[in-house]
Amino acid sequence: MWNEKNNVLEKTFEFDDFTEAFSFMTRVAFLAEKHGHHPNWSNVYNKVTIQLTTHDEGNVVTKKDRDLADAIDSL
Amino acid sequence: MWNEKNNVLEKTFEFDDFTEAFSFMTRVAFLAEKHGHHPNWSNVYNKVTIQLTTHDEGNVVTKKDRDLADAIDSL
Amino acid sequence: MWNEKNNVLEKTFEFDDFTEAFSFMTRVAFLAEKHGHHPNWSNVYNKVTIQLTTHDEGNVVTKKDRDLADAIDSL
Amino acid sequence: MWNEKNNVLEKTFEFDDFTEAFSFMTRVAFLAEKHGHHPNWSNVYNKVTIQLTTHDEGNVVTKKDRDLADAIDSL
Repeated sequence: MWNEKNNVLEKTFEFDDFTEAFSFMTRVAFLAEKHGHHPNWSNVYNKVTIQLTTHDEGNVVTKKDRDLADAIDSL
Repeated sequence: MWNEKNNVLEKTFEFDDFTEAFSFMTRVAFLAEKHGHHPNWSNVYNKVTIQLTTHDEGNVVTKKDRDLADAIDSL
Repeated sequence: MWNEKNNVLEKTFEFDDFTEAFSFMTRVAFLAEKHGHHPNWSNVYNKVTIQLTTHDEGNVVTKKDRDLADAIDSL
Repeated sequence: MWNEKNNVLEKTFEFDDFTEAFSFMTRVAFLAEKHGHHPNWSNVYNKVTIQLTTHDEGNVVTKKDRDLADAIDSL
């Protein structure tokens, strides 16, 4: 479930361990390139937190963010 | 199903597209490092073929290969 | 230059673009696994910020953090 | 130096170890996606062999292959 707050879409994903988390990040990285839209994201061990907002339109949540969020959820 | 032939364990994995295939390879790469044992592998678009053999013991299939094969199947 | 503050070693790396940044992250991910020590890190487009601290010893900077920092700098 | 033979461009890259080789592969994977053109490639420990040909035009070397080869060399 993506949480929208302060003009940012945010979701945290949890995995079994670091390598599972990083492999997920690799898949998201390819998606981000394909979409030409990149997350603000962080990782600690098995957790990945992804934040999406559109800088070019003044740091608000746009269709670009929702499309990338949907694509990530489809992985 | 791993196929053993000519002292090599081999299996081909098929995915939806290149990025899925490469993300799988990333997970296998971490496993290989963890096991201290590395595959001879190739990729064409959505297909990944993995060959396992143990160089240090004269290019035969050993427990190292079977352990890595099992770990890959558990992904 | 790693900056030590509030019991955390921190450094930000900047690259040409997202894929350069993410490829660097891949190399760091392998190092982290090898060291059995994982960063708290974040990425926005071409920037990667790495924070190192040792949870198991009460969130202080230890030799583990300095060793991983050195290894990252050697990439 | 890329070697052209039997309608394939081929080059082998050598690195210090497996993780260096795989990190290079990650960068190439992003390039391949960006170009919409994918290699036939293989890896054994610290060596990566890349073969480029264009399936859609009858498995011959085309501008697509030369462009991707140039991009890989620019990494």
